[in-house]
Formats: sequence, structure tokens, C-alpha cells
Amino acid sequence: MTERPVTGRLYGIGLGPGDPELLTVKAVRLIQAAPVIGYFAKAGRRGNARGIVDRWLTGKAEELALHYPMTTEHAFDSPVYVAVLAAFYENAVADIAAHLDAGRDVALLSEGDPLFYGSFMHLYMRLRARYPVTLVPGVTGMAGCWAAAGEPMTWGDDVLLVVPGTLPLAGLTERLRATDAAVIMKLGRNFAKVRTAVRHAGLLDRAIYVERGTMENEIVMPLADKPDDVAPYFSLILIPGNGRRP
Amino acid sequence: MTERPVTGRLYGIGLGPGDPELLTVKAVRLIQAAPVIGYFAKAGRRGNARGIVDRWLTGKAEELALHYPMTTEHAFDSPVYVAVLAAFYENAVADIAAHLDAGRDVALLSEGDPLFYGSFMHLYMRLRARYPVTLVPGVTGMAGCWAAAGEPMTWGDDVLLVVPGTLPLAGLTERLRATDAAVIMKLGRNFAKVRTAVRHAGLLDRAIYVERGTMENEIVMPLADKPDDVAPYFSLILIPGNGRRP
Repeated sequence: MTERPVTGRLYGIGLGPGDPELLTVKAVRLIQAAPVIGYFAKAGRRGNARGIVDRWLTGKAEELALHYPMTTEHAFDSPVYVAVLAAFYENAVADIAAHLDAGRDVALLSEGDPLFYGSFMHLYMRLRARYPVTLVPGVTGMAGCWAAAGEPMTWGDDVLLVVPGTLPLAGLTERLRATDAAVIMKLGRNFAKVRTAVRHAGLLDRAIYVERGTMENEIVMPLADKPDDVAPYFSLILIPGNGRRP
Repeated sequence: MTERPVTGRLYGIGLGPGDPELLTVKAVRLIQAAPVIGYFAKAGRRGNARGIVDRWLTGKAEELALHYPMTTEHAFDSPVYVAVLAAFYENAVADIAAHLDAGRDVALLSEGDPLFYGSFMHLYMRLRARYPVTLVPGVTGMAGCWAAAGEPMTWGDDVLLVVPGTLPLAGLTERLRATDAAVIMKLGRNFAKVRTAVRHAGLLDRAIYVERGTMENEIVMPLADKPDDVAPYFSLILIPGNGRRP
């Protein structure tokens, strides 16, 4: 009788919106226990995820930095982009699987929540049939932003829309008109269009721009007051709901 | 020259989806430091929020249980319900303000995230102009549920809809047809209608029912397999997105 080999366990760990104290107790415990810590980073950078957990690392874990390929010159839906990114994920999966096969647990860090718009999911979908997995939900980036803004987002029977700024103007405007509350993400080069959609939907006076919510250099301002159309990666627009309130 | 009286600070603290280890480090620190801990509960019960923090309390804080009035015999939009609930909030605010005026900080507990469909917001809106406030975002109940289900919710440019099951059948069906991913909350007596809407939208094969995600006695099953239309307060339906994946 041959024994089934004992593999390591994969942990998908949400880090929250950026403030290192907004990790959950469970996330800290599992990160400190893991022999291998994996995280995404741009080539040559330590990366935001690694920065968030810095104070929690014991120095005993092996670090596995997964360096994103440079893809800015290709459109997201181009065959080259898809192929380059798929190859990156396959290589990352092979690196992680090597540790798991050797019986070592791997904690993969994920900014925000691991199952909400996270790169972690691309690795998880390739690994979950082969290894035991534990998922640790995290505070989303958007929840960090509305806490920074100090505005209740959804009341009673409010409908909330979470929508990327990549949608075309007409469709974005129509969706904003049909909702009670909204979070608009992926601003970047879509910023001017998004602001137009918000105005067309009659929501400009309720819209709040938040940049780097809960992080250093956090910015919160009415969207109407934002003097330019420049928005970094960690930014979004909030349209708080206005529902039933006794 | 008279000194401005020093009041206490109000903390609005997200407790996460139910697992006591899913409090953030910041939430635990502030709860353990607060001289007064406030939480909602049904009359005669300890309440779910108090249960979640049980292991974190030091025993030194004064506890302020805010007992919800019994309102089940009135419709949510009836004048009686609104008046009873408004009176309850005003009384709760007076109790909290008495501590704050005496210089004592008050930590108000909020299941999930404090600004996302939380009763906390009703107190916050009445207190925030009068006292300094710190808000601590939490892991939402829905994030706990999709972690329990183990299914990625949103990819790439997916649109996410968070919608209460209280909407009429036609409107709910139409909204579900127009989204990539959805979370349907407030099931309760709306369950049969919600299931019909999901089926009419062609999403029944992707829908997942989750009850008490991250808590004891957690239940996860395909919505299509659920044999009855009974759903308690801590339950929702997830329709994971299906977006771009290299």
C-alpha cells in the first residue's frame, strides 16, 4: 500500500485596503505561520502587498515574489497580452506548486479581498483542484474608501452597483441612472468619461473621489471639486445611497 | 477663558462576517481600549455582534446593549414602524451621548462593515456633527459568504450588482439579466420570488445559496439544489461573475 503524498496547503489571504492594521486577526496568524509567502509585484519593485504586511512578517518565511510582466504596450484584449499574462500565471503556478508538492504551505497575499477583482483568482483557479485551499476574506478597497470618506454607502433596500470605468459612456450613464448607490473603479484614462457619465446621470453633487483610502497620502474630495482628470490605480468614485432612514 | 469640554470619541467598528478571527487587528485593539462597548440586540438576547466579540473583551468595559423594539407586526414603510424605530434610535443616541459628554469613548459594534447596510449608520448620522468619530471598515457579510463558497466573484471588467430580494419580480429579473455578477440579500419571505427571478434571468445554474457564511453551521449549496424556500437572516445568493481570464 502506497501512502498518498502529503502536500502543503494554499492560503489565499486578503490584506484589506492598505492600512496594515486592517488585516484580520486570521490573516496575521496565517501569514506568521506560513513557511512560504507569495505576492505579486512589478518587476524591480517590492510591491504594495509586500509593503502592507511588512510589520507582520517574522523573517522566517521564504518569500516568493511573482513579478508581473510589463504589458502596458498591449491592449487588454490583444492576443499578445493574453498570451503573456497566461504564461506568467502558468510560471507562477509552477513555482507555487513546487513548494506545495514538497509539503510546504504557501500563503498568497491579495490586496483587498482575494475573490473580488484579484489577481490571486487566476492562480487559485489553476491550483484548487490539486491542493487543499483555505480562503481568508479581507476588507475590500472600496470599503476602505467609504470609511475614509465617512459616508454611509447603502441603506435599507438600496441597490449597489460596482462598475468599472472602462464601460462606454452611454452604458455607464444608463447603469448609474438605474442604481441607488455606486462604486466606480478603474478610473485611470477613463476619468474624464466617467465624470461625464456621472454628470449625465445627475449624480455629480453626490459623487466623492477617493484616492489611496486608508493609506498614507489618502485623498477625499467631492468629484465636482477635482481640478484634473488624473487618477492613479488606487482611486475610485463613490456615489452613496440615499435609502430609507427612520 | 473657558475651556472647550473634552468629549469622548465615537468608534464605529466593523466586526466582519461572523468568524471572531475575521475582526481586523485595528478593531480588536480599539474594542479592548474602549471604556464603553455599544451593540444592538433583540430584547432578551445577547445578540450576534456581542457574540462575535466575546473572546476579545477584557471584562473592563461597560457594556451598553441597545435593544431593538419588536416591530415584526408592522410593515417597514408603515408610519408606526418608522416612528417606533426613530424613537429607538433617539434613545440610543441619548445613551451614547451621555457617555461621550462625560469624556468616555464609545465603541459601537457593527456586524460586517459599519457603512454597508448597517444599523450603526442611523446612530452615526445623528452623532457625527457633535463628536469626533473614527470608522473602522470590516469584512462584509457577502465577502464572508463568497469565501465560504470558494468562488471568485468578479473578474476584470465585471459589473457587480448588490440587490435586495425585496424588489418586485420583473425589476429584479431585469437587473439580474443586465449584470455580470450579483449578490442578492434580504431573502427571507422573498425567497421563492428571488429564485424565480434568477431562473427567468437564465442564471439558476450559476447561483449559489450561502447561509451563515464563516459562522458555525455554515451552509453552501447550489441554489438549484435547495429543497425549500426557507432562508434565515444571515443568508444570501451569489451569482459569480464570468469575466476575462487569461
